[in-house]
Amino acid sequence: MTFFRTFLSSIADAGRDLLDGRQGRDVKPADMHVLCSDLITQKGEALGTALACTVVDAYREFDEAGKRVFFEMLLMDFDVDQATLNTAIAEYQKAPGPITTQAVALSSESLRQRVIRGVNMAPGGTRAVINMREDLLALLRGNPDLQPVDSDFSHLLSSWFNRGFLELRRIDWSTPANVLEKLITYEAVHEIRDWDDLRRRLDQDRRCYAFFHPALPDEPLIFVEVALVNGLSGSVQNLLDDELPRITAESADTAIFYSISNCQKGLRGISFGNFLIKQVVSELRAELSNLNTFSTLSPIPGFHRWLQERQESDPETSHLLLTLEAPGSIENPDTLSEIQKPLMHLCANYLVNEKRKNGPLNTVARFHLGNGARLERINWLGDVSKKGWAESASLLVNYKYDLAKIETNHEMYANDGTIVYSREIASLLEDVPASHLSKTTP
Amino acid sequence: MTFFRTFLSSIADAGRDLLDGRQGRDVKPADMHVLCSDLITQKGEALGTALACTVVDAYREFDEAGKRVFFEMLLMDFDVDQATLNTAIAEYQKAPGPITTQAVALSSESLRQRVIRGVNMAPGGTRAVINMREDLLALLRGNPDLQPVDSDFSHLLSSWFNRGFLELRRIDWSTPANVLEKLITYEAVHEIRDWDDLRRRLDQDRRCYAFFHPALPDEPLIFVEVALVNGLSGSVQNLLDDELPRITAESADTAIFYSISNCQKGLRGISFGNFLIKQVVSELRAELSNLNTFSTLSPIPGFHRWLQERQESDPETSHLLLTLEAPGSIENPDTLSEIQKPLMHLCANYLVNEKRKNGPLNTVARFHLGNGARLERINWLGDVSKKGWAESASLLVNYKYDLAKIETNHEMYANDGTIVYSREIASLLEDVPASHLSKTTP
Amino acid sequence: MTFFRTFLSSIADAGRDLLDGRQGRDVKPADMHVLCSDLITQKGEALGTALACTVVDAYREFDEAGKRVFFEMLLMDFDVDQATLNTAIAEYQKAPGPITTQAVALSSESLRQRVIRGVNMAPGGTRAVINMREDLLALLRGNPDLQPVDSDFSHLLSSWFNRGFLELRRIDWSTPANVLEKLITYEAVHEIRDWDDLRRRLDQDRRCYAFFHPALPDEPLIFVEVALVNGLSGSVQNLLDDELPRITAESADTAIFYSISNCQKGLRGISFGNFLIKQVVSELRAELSNLNTFSTLSPIPGFHRWLQERQESDPETSHLLLTLEAPGSIENPDTLSEIQKPLMHLCANYLVNEKRKNGPLNTVARFHLGNGARLERINWLGDVSKKGWAESASLLVNYKYDLAKIETNHEMYANDGTIVYSREIASLLEDVPASHLSKTTP
Amino acid sequence: MTFFRTFLSSIADAGRDLLDGRQGRDVKPADMHVLCSDLITQKGEALGTALACTVVDAYREFDEAGKRVFFEMLLMDFDVDQATLNTAIAEYQKAPGPITTQAVALSSESLRQRVIRGVNMAPGGTRAVINMREDLLALLRGNPDLQPVDSDFSHLLSSWFNRGFLELRRIDWSTPANVLEKLITYEAVHEIRDWDDLRRRLDQDRRCYAFFHPALPDEPLIFVEVALVNGLSGSVQNLLDDELPRITAESADTAIFYSISNCQKGLRGISFGNFLIKQVVSELRAELSNLNTFSTLSPIPGFHRWLQERQESDPETSHLLLTLEAPGSIENPDTLSEIQKPLMHLCANYLVNEKRKNGPLNTVARFHLGNGARLERINWLGDVSKKGWAESASLLVNYKYDLAKIETNHEMYANDGTIVYSREIASLLEDVPASHLSKTTP
Repeated sequence: MTFFRTFLSSIADAGRDLLDGRQGRDVKPADMHVLCSDLITQKGEALGTALACTVVDAYREFDEAGKRVFFEMLLMDFDVDQATLNTAIAEYQKAPGPITTQAVALSSESLRQRVIRGVNMAPGGTRAVINMREDLLALLRGNPDLQPVDSDFSHLLSSWFNRGFLELRRIDWSTPANVLEKLITYEAVHEIRDWDDLRRRLDQDRRCYAFFHPALPDEPLIFVEVALVNGLSGSVQNLLDDELPRITAESADTAIFYSISNCQKGLRGISFGNFLIKQVVSELRAELSNLNTFSTLSPIPGFHRWLQERQESDPETSHLLLTLEAPGSIENPDTLSEIQKPLMHLCANYLVNEKRKNGPLNTVARFHLGNGARLERINWLGDVSKKGWAESASLLVNYKYDLAKIETNHEMYANDGTIVYSREIASLLEDVPASHLSKTTP
Repeated sequence: MTFFRTFLSSIADAGRDLLDGRQGRDVKPADMHVLCSDLITQKGEALGTALACTVVDAYREFDEAGKRVFFEMLLMDFDVDQATLNTAIAEYQKAPGPITTQAVALSSESLRQRVIRGVNMAPGGTRAVINMREDLLALLRGNPDLQPVDSDFSHLLSSWFNRGFLELRRIDWSTPANVLEKLITYEAVHEIRDWDDLRRRLDQDRRCYAFFHPALPDEPLIFVEVALVNGLSGSVQNLLDDELPRITAESADTAIFYSISNCQKGLRGISFGNFLIKQVVSELRAELSNLNTFSTLSPIPGFHRWLQERQESDPETSHLLLTLEAPGSIENPDTLSEIQKPLMHLCANYLVNEKRKNGPLNTVARFHLGNGARLERINWLGDVSKKGWAESASLLVNYKYDLAKIETNHEMYANDGTIVYSREIASLLEDVPASHLSKTTP
Repeated sequence: MTFFRTFLSSIADAGRDLLDGRQGRDVKPADMHVLCSDLITQKGEALGTALACTVVDAYREFDEAGKRVFFEMLLMDFDVDQATLNTAIAEYQKAPGPITTQAVALSSESLRQRVIRGVNMAPGGTRAVINMREDLLALLRGNPDLQPVDSDFSHLLSSWFNRGFLELRRIDWSTPANVLEKLITYEAVHEIRDWDDLRRRLDQDRRCYAFFHPALPDEPLIFVEVALVNGLSGSVQNLLDDELPRITAESADTAIFYSISNCQKGLRGISFGNFLIKQVVSELRAELSNLNTFSTLSPIPGFHRWLQERQESDPETSHLLLTLEAPGSIENPDTLSEIQKPLMHLCANYLVNEKRKNGPLNTVARFHLGNGARLERINWLGDVSKKGWAESASLLVNYKYDLAKIETNHEMYANDGTIVYSREIASLLEDVPASHLSKTTP
Repeated sequence: MTFFRTFLSSIADAGRDLLDGRQGRDVKPADMHVLCSDLITQKGEALGTALACTVVDAYREFDEAGKRVFFEMLLMDFDVDQATLNTAIAEYQKAPGPITTQAVALSSESLRQRVIRGVNMAPGGTRAVINMREDLLALLRGNPDLQPVDSDFSHLLSSWFNRGFLELRRIDWSTPANVLEKLITYEAVHEIRDWDDLRRRLDQDRRCYAFFHPALPDEPLIFVEVALVNGLSGSVQNLLDDELPRITAESADTAIFYSISNCQKGLRGISFGNFLIKQVVSELRAELSNLNTFSTLSPIPGFHRWLQERQESDPETSHLLLTLEAPGSIENPDTLSEIQKPLMHLCANYLVNEKRKNGPLNTVARFHLGNGARLERINWLGDVSKKGWAESASLLVNYKYDLAKIETNHEMYANDGTIVYSREIASLLEDVPASHLSKTTP
């Protein structure tokens, strides 16, 4: 224990010097038990944030093995006090009611949560907590027993990253470069090739918005890219084409949300996307009264694989895929006209009728339809990139957000899983050779 | 239900217009059950923050009775689902372990917390949650059954106002007036009479720091006022005297923390003071290397009353008080010299030996000594204001913060309640007529 | 010269230390000749801004006599080089044309202007130049020979404080206190009594705008106070009354400009007021589409004195003044009704018919009418303060700004001195006993 | 004139709408005379900034011919009033003195300056004035008679861009992208290839500073790039190499100013560079006490051409150049060792002994030596880029800034043209075959 005492005194001595993080270097994973214990006692307060800094700095130096030791220690040593919990349960069972319930809640909340709150007190602590969870999510695969630790991180981060604490900021070409480069890094739907590509996406007929949290001022949490156009867009290559002429924002009638990307792996499962889309719709309506349509241009990840899986049992699907994959087929108008209709029919069916639990199998559809959007249009050759082909068989979908109908749509979806779609989609669902129809509607 | 559906559609229609808050006016306390229920289902997300706004706006219009109805509804209708909790407890009792514990924790967390998180999503939601708790604290006295509701508010606010999310800002004469006027409103120790008085406290030989939370950018949570002086200050009237000459900050050797005030009633019990003092010490050390002493100049609330209570059983204390209270006694040097020594002896005893549980009876002493400060000096006629007389019999105390000893002091205090005091205090404790001594040391 | 060389080397040595201004203390007025000479040679550039700092610091320490010495030195030693000027004139006279003219211009520009530009290079140099001119203006009265020095200051300051460099900022209750206190100091029309009075003037139904120059970020140059009301206001006491109810800015139809004050004595004669009024009209129109009338509520400084001067020659004016000055007359409705009409007639005549050169004798009328405003209304008992009585015999005037007519009004005023006034004023001018009329129209 | 009156009324009507600039489109160059005349009468003030906006907008639409017409109109129609000037001259000649001189100055200042001040009043007016001058400089070559117009622009811009109005800002990776891209555009010494190259120049061991003017907040006027290294750097390729390891800023002992670029063509001849270098030296000294050497790494533009010009008369120089230009010579150590010494000798001679007027022929040397720097070192193969070869025969020079000696160096340079150089340069000047020496010293 002498080491630790000396160590801590030196911390107190050092005052502000602490914050440069050097002290953390000498701490081994095994020492973390003592540090974390102190962190959740009054001593944590007595030492100000010095203790939290030490934990943060020490953790940063750990390799993967050290991190696993750390999380396992959190799992084993910072669970609950079972005796206290048992007593609380006994009291509750004697006299169930708000007060005894609360005692159970209190004594069943693991000490880990207090440790995590303690870590968050350090300068840069929120960043550290998110990084810890990112590491933990990676470790979870091989160490499923760590799940309770992740639940504690997830619980606190959900509360801290409550919508009420997020700030919507517009991103444009006057945004600092260290923020902009994160867009390049995190864009997950349509890769940003370079700074010229980025700049085109921030031009006068484009908009980009992101949520930020005050504890991470330079780190977008999620961002959405919007194109201001006339009429529904069906092709992402057109949207990204630097050569095509710009229009003024004031002359557009439609806002196309063509990309939305999460940035922080450590916040997985904490959902911001629905809020972001709706708030951006509100912002755009307020800024540009000329806009009357708000729609996405979305990929259909999994559609190609779904087609491939049908191949064996369905010779027509097999034929379609073979035709599509044949070299030069996309350039051949005859080929295209032959397969376009059946493929779009299949896609409409995939989106509307293929279910998982109560919602669509397709996660993007599930997200937008759950938000109250309407399935509006399927776009032939909407994304002719490699990725577009591999994921979505080169199709793209428009989901339309009509603020006046969001609630009704959502209600119907939530109550009985009804998917609201346009007349055009309805016609795609019907208008198809009998052979296909029979297979896609069970 | 038609009212409600129409109402909500109008919300969705209204989009951004919602935020001006007019919709909330028509909601009665009884309608809140439905709104809060929706807030914690997926519908809350589907409607963006519109629902949360409605709750916030509606609550604002309630009178006290309406607020009580609201909190009672939270108590009764948004507790836990007992069946789920009972099942979780049964599972836990069968196989105690992190996973079953977590299920208990999850099912014993009341739905109220989800409602509060939902309210926080509104623009201005954090302000609304704090205001709700302020109202609730006032209602608690007559309605102690609402305690579990307060525990939920308190739990979430503690987590949200974690030290890691607070921002330290220096307050000076270039701070916006709408923030400065809050100092005048909230100053709880030595009243700020007017803007001239305030300005003197922000002069070149003064410092003022406050914690802010990003969700309340114009609202200080707590602030501390510091005087830069030479040698320990013993009189607050001197510190506040606008006529006395200023020194430069660079020529001071001592920082006197002479006032610390909480600003948000709705955050009662969530402690920032210890962090604030320590971070300000760090800031000042970094800015002004000439400072070598950091000390408070603190009141002794309760000391006068304690003297009065002793009066009956102790004729000498009675004599002291009578002498003090006699008109003109304070101006009379003979009187003063007669009573100074015994009164300061009594004060030292009061601070060191009068206990509640393991700590000093006096709350200010308890706070600073618990933080690791040292009881340094008692100042005769340190505060000759009415309030100073009524609370502290006109004495003031210095608690000294020595960063190098904070941890040791805190440890001694935490382990066995040891109070660390200076040689001067030690001498005060001894140097006293036997009659007093026998009474104060049991 | 050794002193000076050592001195300057120490400056160069000191680098950044220079900026704290201590070196300037040892410089005497007589040394300034050398410093200013260096400032305008290449040496000024070689030494960076150190030399300019020294001049600024030294000047600040001078007493009035020292300052006079300094300005006299500028007058005598930093005029033009006559030989060069004479040559340039000779060339010009030989061949008048743009190039020879420019040579005359160049050689007739005094070296003082280069000195002043040099001083401006110091950090805080613009403040220093303005302060120098303020001192100079005060000295001018007793030292009219310094006029050429003032012309140089005035010429440069006019160019530097060009409208294009000024920034319009709205002042409200969230403005830093160190700026707000300057409003209290500089308000020249209707004194701001204290911070409560100030706060009322920044409330929801008030607006305040100021021009700032980037080199003086905390110093308003000029500010205007506006009341948002319904209908033309006629009484400044009503506008300033803290007890009267507020309206929302969105429900007002009229903006009353009731006070406009210059802040920097050193910028005397450099006019910002006309730009300020017009830009504020533009801002308010853009922010509040509900506003349809923009008018001043202005004093009539000189009117009372003008009445007094007429007294001797005009018994009726003498009678009016005596009646007014009698104790209690203002509270007496009979008295008032007797004198109101003739006094307002006199006032209309004073404003419309009393001329100096081509414009109205009254400077406030001259300013607003020259800007293109219309003389709209005279208000009986518009300002019942002591100052209002002493200056304007308690009357106030509305000048109305109608953007659609500003140019026409201005043209008529500029071409033949026509004063545009309302029907109401026209009627006041006519409706009067013959005795008065005969006297006011020559 | 009806067109113009209607036009102007529509301006006044339009109020704020003016600022979008559409009105300017209908103005032809020939109409500008009327607009500019109004701009310099009181009417300019009466119309607020609307008139200035019209001039700015109209000018922007002119083609080159239109612009020439505009500048010729300024030359001819807005010169001085010769009668007034002649009178002033007559008065001056009768009684020369400050007052009559000032009258000459006043009446010899062309009306153009008032027009330019008027244009500057428009929003964006300063940008417009700079753009006008950029156009004018281009026109000057073919139209030398426009010189007096340029003198007026230059005179005013010099006064407005006085050092005292400039703001030094550090540029780093958190600077907005729209500012950063201007570095890429304007870098004039060592081209910035792309954003990765830029980022390397803004890394932890680099610094970049720029001057900004408040009227052009996103436009750097001039910027300097600095490398923090250990020991004098001799190779710019090393400095720009992204692969080489970084050091921490705190471990460097030397700051190398390796690039300085002007950004605004319209400000040609208005010098900021000397102030920038000296202020950056001050900033770096204040931030990083570990730095003890401040030096440039500069090109020698003109040296290669100078060598080529000597070729004909000097066979040895011819031999050196041929050797250098032979393919592969730079990779051949023998070749290098043969020519290095004589070439560096020639370079030292070029820098020290080749004069134009009283200073070095080489402009970069003239700039730094005039600022008080010392010629420190010549670097063999300091810049092996194409441009480095073409300009400087691949050599680079260090000029060293020693704040303690700047003034002495500058004095010696200014008084008798003495160039201060290091012992190493001295040895280069001597240590050379007699044949060279005889040729370079006349």
